Parts: sequence; C-alpha cells; structure tokens
Amino acid sequence: MADAPESKMIEMQLGRVIRHDTADRSYIFLQEKGGARSFPIVIGRYEAEEIYRVLTKQDPRRPLTHQLAHAAIESLGAHIARCDIVDLRDNTFFAQLVLSAGGGATTAVVDARPSDAIALALRSGAGIRVAESILEQVRSDESGPDPLPEDPAPPQS
Amino acid sequence: MADAPESKMIEMQLGRVIRHDTADRSYIFLQEKGGARSFPIVIGRYEAEEIYRVLTKQDPRRPLTHQLAHAAIESLGAHIARCDIVDLRDNTFFAQLVLSAGGGATTAVVDARPSDAIALALRSGAGIRVAESILEQVRSDESGPDPLPEDPAPPQS
Repeated sequence: MADAPESKMIEMQLGRVIRHDTADRSYIFLQEKGGARSFPIVIGRYEAEEIYRVLTKQDPRRPLTHQLAHAAIESLGAHIARCDIVDLRDNTFFAQLVLSAGGGATTAVVDARPSDAIALALRSGAGIRVAESILEQVRSDESGPDPLPEDPAPPQS
Repeated sequence: MADAPESKMIEMQLGRVIRHDTADRSYIFLQEKGGARSFPIVIGRYEAEEIYRVLTKQDPRRPLTHQLAHAAIESLGAHIARCDIVDLRDNTFFAQLVLSAGGGATTAVVDARPSDAIALALRSGAGIRVAESILEQVRSDESGPDPLPEDPAPPQS
C-alpha cells in the first residue's frame, strides 16, 4: 500500500482522447474542473483503447484485463473510489488507485500507471485528481514545445 | 459472480510459451499434471508478454495492468486461489479467476479470458485447472490440423 499524497489534490476530468495505432503514441488530456488548466499524458495503445471503450459505452464480448480488474475488485465487496495522479518524475506520471471496501470503512491504495487508473476510474464513475504540484510543473513546461499529438514531449503514463 | 464449474476439473501446468510480435498470434500450451494431455491456447501479445515476464521473474519498472489487478486484489486482503478454464464454445476458451478472501472464509469467482487468468495465477503461484470436458474436446480436435505455431486453428483465449 502506497503513502497518501501530500500535495493539495485538484479535481480533473477527461478531455480529448487521441488514439494512435502504434504503441505508446496515444494521448489523453486532463482538464481542471471549474478551471482552465489542462495537460496531456502519453499512454499506451491498449489503455487508450480501453478508455475509448468506456467513453463509447462499448463492452467487449469477454472481459479484457481492465474489466477483469474491475470485476475482481467488485467481487470482493469493494469499489474504485478515485484515481489520484500524485507524482511526476523523470518525465513519467505516477498514480494511485484508491479502493473503498466494507461500505467505506476501509480504504486501500494501490500504485498504478495513470492510464490504468484513469481507465478503471472512468468505468466506475469515480473521480480523477491531480496533485497541485504536478499542475504547476506541467504549466511551467508549457513555455517549452507545444504538446501537439505528434510531439513526443509530454510525460508518459 | 459466475457459477462454479460443473465438469470434473483437471490440474494443469504451463508448458511452452510462443510469443509473436503481431496481435493474437502468441501461444501457450497447457499440460496435464501427471498425465500426457496437452493443448495450445492462442493468446494476445500483451498477455503473452505478461506471462513471459512472470516466467522470467521480470518486474516492470511501474505496475502494468496485470500487476495492478494483482495488487488491488491483495490490497483488499484477498489472494488469487486458482484459474479454472471452464468452457470452450465457438472456438473460444472461457475461464474463471477464483479469489479467496477473509483468510479463506470467502470465495469470489470472476469471469476472465484464460490468458489473463493464467497470467494472474502464475504470478500468485496459484494452480491452473481445465474442465475434463474441454480436454476431451481438444483431444478429439487433434484428428484435424496439427496445431503448429503458424496454424490459426487453436481456440483463442
């Protein structure tokens, strides 16, 4: 179980999803709820496909890996409470998936890639938060190259 | 939660793993423990890579989707007890991941693709079982084309 995040956490929502057929060239954008800040995360093709499936309400014929994870958590009487993106180091984002069990009596926190945690949170209708310190960091990065879809600069999930 | 399997269940172990770079062209072979029966399952590239990582004791730098599923299950005080391959319909295998919680007091059963369930079972040191009816079915199939790695005939996970 990972430590709780220390920075102030900001509520975000999913913006655009840009899927690329080649590996690790898909993007998602997170937007500040009730705010103007937004930033992209480079994610893998498989996770981008799963996020797209959730957004378009597609259920695969058989449970894929994310659906299995989701079903396993729910089969244990727990649910996905939140996705927290808590760190940005070496151009890589780090997230935590927050689970609630026992009718909210217990919380479990699991380290995850943002792409996986966001995919699972979206499927559960759970919230997405990002540490204020990360929002400041990615904003300061905007003085650099514009993070267009073809730009390899945005930090990876 | 899925129903418990009705057929007699046979203990299996993982045999060869054949990875292909293209999607859905990797194979794993399951072998009967203390028996001679064996059969291949076509699995996806992503799941083949995860099974290979488990076999070669590689831990990715950050948790990938299977590791996240595994960690989430364990964070809830449960563990993966078994992978059961329970059905073969329309050339497709169906599996169940059996979870044990509360120190063995509770069992949860989740529908899964065999590739995901086998990957998670292997990482947990849990057993793999296949329904006797499936073993009979794949054996009778052996009168057909030989399931060589380049043969698209074996049922998919």
